[in-house]
Amino acid sequence: MTDLAQLSLKPRLLCDTEIAMGPGKADLLEAIRTYGSISAAARAMDMSYRRAWLLVDAMNRCWAKPLVATSPGRAGGAGAVLTDTGETVLAHYRAFQQHIRQAADTADLAALSALLRQEPTEPRGH
Amino acid sequence: MTDLAQLSLKPRLLCDTEIAMGPGKADLLEAIRTYGSISAAARAMDMSYRRAWLLVDAMNRCWAKPLVATSPGRAGGAGAVLTDTGETVLAHYRAFQQHIRQAADTADLAALSALLRQEPTEPRGH
Repeated sequence: MTDLAQLSLKPRLLCDTEIAMGPGKADLLEAIRTYGSISAAARAMDMSYRRAWLLVDAMNRCWAKPLVATSPGRAGGAGAVLTDTGETVLAHYRAFQQHIRQAADTADLAALSALLRQEPTEPRGH
Repeated sequence: MTDLAQLSLKPRLLCDTEIAMGPGKADLLEAIRTYGSISAAARAMDMSYRRAWLLVDAMNRCWAKPLVATSPGRAGGAGAVLTDTGETVLAHYRAFQQHIRQAADTADLAALSALLRQEPTEPRGH
């Protein structure tokens, strides 16, 4: 088993030039499911509400149906839940991520890992 | 076969926080092999010489041995070639990329692709 910590695999699904799903958006969906609102999910992820809202809006516009449904609430207290489509997309994406990571454990990766330093040598100072 | 154009897979090998190899660096190595110098490779890739030099320097410091060897020349005319280690790393990385891309053609990806729009719907204008 190669040291996969040296491998960065961030599979993304694109909708034209927009990232429809990727590791960060999947994390946000899970946080919304856990915390029940975009604002609470944003706080838990140390992200601004505006950024979380923009990510949700992008996801909602990239898929056949919205992934997140919001219900009006008190100021700042609106609730949010994953739709059936949201749960479906999240489940397939997580399974896909896991499959890709397992498929990455190849002889080529082992050969690369064997040649890779743990940290770079010092810059030559040019 | 799913429409893989909607999938972005950019596997990267990390040396601590430095990207030791990724799609762009692999392209640069191939351009150096083709054009025989960092400056000509940079021009061919529409990249500044400084940026190409920094990418080569990062690669050379991240692997067991340098991937690119330069020989002094006239001003701006120094030659560059891939070392044996450079050829080895490039070959394994390209094989790894191809394997990952083939491994990505799964039922999960097909299910995601079926739900993905070709382009996002219009912003809600919030």
